[in-house]
Amino acid sequence: MKNTFGSQVTVTLFGESHGPYIGAVLDGISPGIPVDTDYIAAQLTLRRPSGSISTARQETDAFEIVSGVFEGHTTGTPLCILIPNHDTKSGDYDSLRNRPRPSHADYAAECKYHGAQDPRGGGHFSGRVTAALVAVGAICRKALEARGIQIGTHILSCHGIRDRAFHTLSEDIALLNESTFPTLSPEAGQQMRAEILTHKEQGDSVGGVLETAVIGMPAGVGEPWFDTLEGVLSHALFSIPAIKGVEFGDGFALADMLGSEAQDPFRMVDGSVITATNHNGGINGGISNGMPLLYRVAVKPTPTLSIPLDTVDLSTGENVTLAAKGRHDPAIIHRARVVVDAVSAIVLADQIAVHYGSDFLSQKA
Amino acid sequence: MKNTFGSQVTVTLFGESHGPYIGAVLDGISPGIPVDTDYIAAQLTLRRPSGSISTARQETDAFEIVSGVFEGHTTGTPLCILIPNHDTKSGDYDSLRNRPRPSHADYAAECKYHGAQDPRGGGHFSGRVTAALVAVGAICRKALEARGIQIGTHILSCHGIRDRAFHTLSEDIALLNESTFPTLSPEAGQQMRAEILTHKEQGDSVGGVLETAVIGMPAGVGEPWFDTLEGVLSHALFSIPAIKGVEFGDGFALADMLGSEAQDPFRMVDGSVITATNHNGGINGGISNGMPLLYRVAVKPTPTLSIPLDTVDLSTGENVTLAAKGRHDPAIIHRARVVVDAVSAIVLADQIAVHYGSDFLSQKA
Amino acid sequence: MKNTFGSQVTVTLFGESHGPYIGAVLDGISPGIPVDTDYIAAQLTLRRPSGSISTARQETDAFEIVSGVFEGHTTGTPLCILIPNHDTKSGDYDSLRNRPRPSHADYAAECKYHGAQDPRGGGHFSGRVTAALVAVGAICRKALEARGIQIGTHILSCHGIRDRAFHTLSEDIALLNESTFPTLSPEAGQQMRAEILTHKEQGDSVGGVLETAVIGMPAGVGEPWFDTLEGVLSHALFSIPAIKGVEFGDGFALADMLGSEAQDPFRMVDGSVITATNHNGGINGGISNGMPLLYRVAVKPTPTLSIPLDTVDLSTGENVTLAAKGRHDPAIIHRARVVVDAVSAIVLADQIAVHYGSDFLSQKA
Amino acid sequence: MKNTFGSQVTVTLFGESHGPYIGAVLDGISPGIPVDTDYIAAQLTLRRPSGSISTARQETDAFEIVSGVFEGHTTGTPLCILIPNHDTKSGDYDSLRNRPRPSHADYAAECKYHGAQDPRGGGHFSGRVTAALVAVGAICRKALEARGIQIGTHILSCHGIRDRAFHTLSEDIALLNESTFPTLSPEAGQQMRAEILTHKEQGDSVGGVLETAVIGMPAGVGEPWFDTLEGVLSHALFSIPAIKGVEFGDGFALADMLGSEAQDPFRMVDGSVITATNHNGGINGGISNGMPLLYRVAVKPTPTLSIPLDTVDLSTGENVTLAAKGRHDPAIIHRARVVVDAVSAIVLADQIAVHYGSDFLSQKA
Repeated sequence: MKNTFGSQVTVTLFGESHGPYIGAVLDGISPGIPVDTDYIAAQLTLRRPSGSISTARQETDAFEIVSGVFEGHTTGTPLCILIPNHDTKSGDYDSLRNRPRPSHADYAAECKYHGAQDPRGGGHFSGRVTAALVAVGAICRKALEARGIQIGTHILSCHGIRDRAFHTLSEDIALLNESTFPTLSPEAGQQMRAEILTHKEQGDSVGGVLETAVIGMPAGVGEPWFDTLEGVLSHALFSIPAIKGVEFGDGFALADMLGSEAQDPFRMVDGSVITATNHNGGINGGISNGMPLLYRVAVKPTPTLSIPLDTVDLSTGENVTLAAKGRHDPAIIHRARVVVDAVSAIVLADQIAVHYGSDFLSQKA
Repeated sequence: MKNTFGSQVTVTLFGESHGPYIGAVLDGISPGIPVDTDYIAAQLTLRRPSGSISTARQETDAFEIVSGVFEGHTTGTPLCILIPNHDTKSGDYDSLRNRPRPSHADYAAECKYHGAQDPRGGGHFSGRVTAALVAVGAICRKALEARGIQIGTHILSCHGIRDRAFHTLSEDIALLNESTFPTLSPEAGQQMRAEILTHKEQGDSVGGVLETAVIGMPAGVGEPWFDTLEGVLSHALFSIPAIKGVEFGDGFALADMLGSEAQDPFRMVDGSVITATNHNGGINGGISNGMPLLYRVAVKPTPTLSIPLDTVDLSTGENVTLAAKGRHDPAIIHRARVVVDAVSAIVLADQIAVHYGSDFLSQKA
Repeated sequence: MKNTFGSQVTVTLFGESHGPYIGAVLDGISPGIPVDTDYIAAQLTLRRPSGSISTARQETDAFEIVSGVFEGHTTGTPLCILIPNHDTKSGDYDSLRNRPRPSHADYAAECKYHGAQDPRGGGHFSGRVTAALVAVGAICRKALEARGIQIGTHILSCHGIRDRAFHTLSEDIALLNESTFPTLSPEAGQQMRAEILTHKEQGDSVGGVLETAVIGMPAGVGEPWFDTLEGVLSHALFSIPAIKGVEFGDGFALADMLGSEAQDPFRMVDGSVITATNHNGGINGGISNGMPLLYRVAVKPTPTLSIPLDTVDLSTGENVTLAAKGRHDPAIIHRARVVVDAVSAIVLADQIAVHYGSDFLSQKA
Repeated sequence: MKNTFGSQVTVTLFGESHGPYIGAVLDGISPGIPVDTDYIAAQLTLRRPSGSISTARQETDAFEIVSGVFEGHTTGTPLCILIPNHDTKSGDYDSLRNRPRPSHADYAAECKYHGAQDPRGGGHFSGRVTAALVAVGAICRKALEARGIQIGTHILSCHGIRDRAFHTLSEDIALLNESTFPTLSPEAGQQMRAEILTHKEQGDSVGGVLETAVIGMPAGVGEPWFDTLEGVLSHALFSIPAIKGVEFGDGFALADMLGSEAQDPFRMVDGSVITATNHNGGINGGISNGMPLLYRVAVKPTPTLSIPLDTVDLSTGENVTLAAKGRHDPAIIHRARVVVDAVSAIVLADQIAVHYGSDFLSQKA
């Protein structure tokens, strides 16, 4: 299936960094969901480069929905969103064609596509394609919210600087969804931005960890094998360029805990079963248990640097160095946040459709 | 697709802990691959409980291949392996039916299946089902080896005790594949076993981190979006019970590194392009780059303890405590190793079939 | 996906004619559906060879459900059914190994599997594998009936002898489901049996057309493109060996009709929208319109004959003749009926799960 | 998967009759295939309304490939084609919103989408969407031709007027691919056109049968169960609006033949295995046997007539009559031809990629 993902609610991605459009087709979405183009635009704004801590490439992301919406609502048929590319400077990349950028997809793409790939700006591998994910994810996210399911992501850490932990999830999620630089602690946010700028000045870059919480997820969604909630979420999340790790609940920290420390005891509270702790991130046996979903993704530092780097010239077979001249990001962690939210929304909308049927998200709660 | 996974080489799992059989159907495997039943048996032995550091449940895993093999070779049609369950003591679990074990799938399964699930021994959620994964994975693994692709996994850490890092991968993989308790350092292995026994005596349990290396993987396999190598591997790996995190290359450690530190410079060595370091774990842009694949999974401590734990009685709505009386494992990390190997082999065989076609693995290298 | 079919309710087939078992895994079926083993046995009996008009091979089809059923109901996890093969006489087929039977799969299988396929009794291509389809289809069919959806199939024609048309569908379906030789007209049935015997005596065989009606199918199920109801039904139906044509409603007869003759006018009757005729077989635009589904499949005459046939010897490259010595059927049309019913039930259960969610079929109507 | 089809080479369709664009995403196609935009344009021309025997709606089909092509070749990443809609007259359809057209998708769509569907010009159900299939199918078809696989389709019959049978396939296919009204006999073609005009004048419409031949298809492609060549071809072909039957080889005619008449004897000719006849249409056991593929589809007469037809008013619940005022086709059989060719090309490209891997179609033959 390659560039299509999902069982019932599916997304197909297309487009290259310097082509006329990037876009996505969202299929299997419930008919009758309101499509709020302002909300989509706002989500795209969160993904766009922002001031000094981002690339200088400026795209207005003037998206167009060309199918699947009628009179402001989803029709239930495939919804295609196009986002034009305007501010492309392909000249910057010409010299790189035979000189793959270290830690980028260039060389792996050459091996896979035998030179037929579009090399301009990373082509189909460009992070720009995530704009299409954000656009269709925004539609799913709004629909989930109408059913009481909310998603929020913060920068848990950025090059060692750490945000505070989640406290009250509903308030924290609301706070994050109004932030352009998503930290729960304003001080941590300022330190992170300063850190990014420091390394930008040196031609370097930084990464970090994003932490996501989902509240309102009904219990009983997911599968015991293969299509576990962890499995389908991680499958999709690893599509986001630069993500190299995904963990649920306490994740890798569980490896150092005793079984007695890692327990999530069940308690009956006001007639509902809850767990007193949430070391498992709301998922047991691959299936939601009704507690908030909690997961984290590791974002590697952006590989494009203006520092000269060692590479090879594929045409001559010689070792060479190259320093990026194109516009690039000293950090993408703050931009990747809304992509994680969008991918989460798409996957959860799909899982809910698998369990509750194709009309659930447009039915009144 | 639920309990079926893969694009070209697919696995379908079935069976419950206390049913007559667990099993798997492997479909899409190349015709003409030798099926080495001794090797399958040996892999199953590595997964089976082993002495004092495991559950007392003893299964001989006398598997039977009931289809898809003729005259000792795969036919190319679906290969079904059955593994009978013998040593089942369902009486142990009767009292637990309404009392979900904390951090187990019991409660999530109740929410999903509305009471229709088989509760005996965890039913379909039981780790016992992984025996079927190991059996079919062994067939894929042998076929990959015949094409020069080798997989090895060690216990990188167990409740804080750390194994040495990989040095020479081909030698380390050979060493691991002859070990029943897979550490690269014999001393670390002894300390881990002692640690497991210490916590077993207290009715507690431990987890750890498994690290996998794959050598010989051709460059150019994987997809840019969704079916990235990281995505498909993690999707399958999260099916293994107790796994709560997956990371590739330096994974979460990348979050604290600078771009200049995380680079994998390309170098030309003996006419081949290699990377001088492997922070990205052999994958760029979702696609193999020809370097060894490196990834780690976090294994949580086994949740079944003889220490009394807080839970609820779903029939009365009361808070209660329960202490496991069934046989259980103080650690599964050493047993999970061969499951990680098997799942890796299945996923890589699938990805190779996607790229090179359905006959590749039985062709002469 | 090869030997697995379906979106939400999936079937995976395995097994060879002369292996220890053939079987199927049914996944994604609603939890809590009653499993009536007598009904499954009765459906298998309808598929089994019956007296003088069938092969002499006798199988008791003593199936065993090895997973996915607990206390008489589906658990919602994968349900595996095994059917042992007993009455195998592989010796009959030894001489055929290099001499592919005309109009059989032997030669195409040789091209695909390069000689690795199991040649005994047709191996995985054997019609015997349809027993597994019948067994899991019976579970789906019972569940559909509990929701008011009924399926019935008759032999519309057999070597030119024609059954009467459907009249009152509910009565006709009831009648068919109690018949071992499914015709609506007893006289037509007798003539067909006589015709089969006549050609059997000459070492020859006959085919025919099966016509299926489904009542109670809710309107609004199916998709506009690709996963049209016609598309998914035909995809699955063409798996049944010997089926070479599928048509819906008036099918090929529509090619000779005028638009004004082929209309299905909508009428309001007792507050419901119905169509006055049903030339479209209950499907418009790929989606059910609430009228009965009507479709027909063409079953070719069984290719195994005792008349000598021209073929080639693949080992010598010579033209040769061969006459079947194994046991074979002079007609399978009456046996194929219950396979068509079963496949229909599986596909419709899947489509309903896609639309109404994974629990629908076990909910009270 | 709904509006996406295929295993390795996949197509995703989107768009509505009166939206800004219809389009398709072709994914998984080999990198490096030449993309001949003139050929695509020519194929689209064959699908477009042509003179007096078609609708008056005129579209230029000025398609744009917005991704997946670089320097005139496929990149191997998703290829999106957009085709703008210009000549839309939505006013014509306003009165029909509550009055479903008999034998159209209108009412079934209402049941599925609960009124959220785009009703203008049939919305996503419009035959106009097949332009996108033709465009991406043209790319597959050219790639197949470069590997020696050729597809040709003729109008076997139109309202009872019959074309001659295929004689020499390579010559016949060449002839058809240069014809705008695809018959092998020019006289039959003239009679068919006259027949269409006759019924057009009466406000009526006609259908017919299309017959397709594929030469050069390698033996050994397809699967024994579910993904049989017949199954996957029919699944896709039934997506084409108005198709109500699909048959392979002699299809429904086999039902009246004896086994001895329906045999395809194998013969050794010039060192190759061939069959002396081709009653099975080049497919045995779901797998290609190296002979030409032969299949036919039944195309129902177009349901939109200017003759008044009985329907219901969904808003009032009353029986009403309606006569189409929009532009419509008295026959689509000649236009459907190139859609059948395109769908065939997509499916065969997919099956070949499954068997031979993702790069096969761009490798030199």
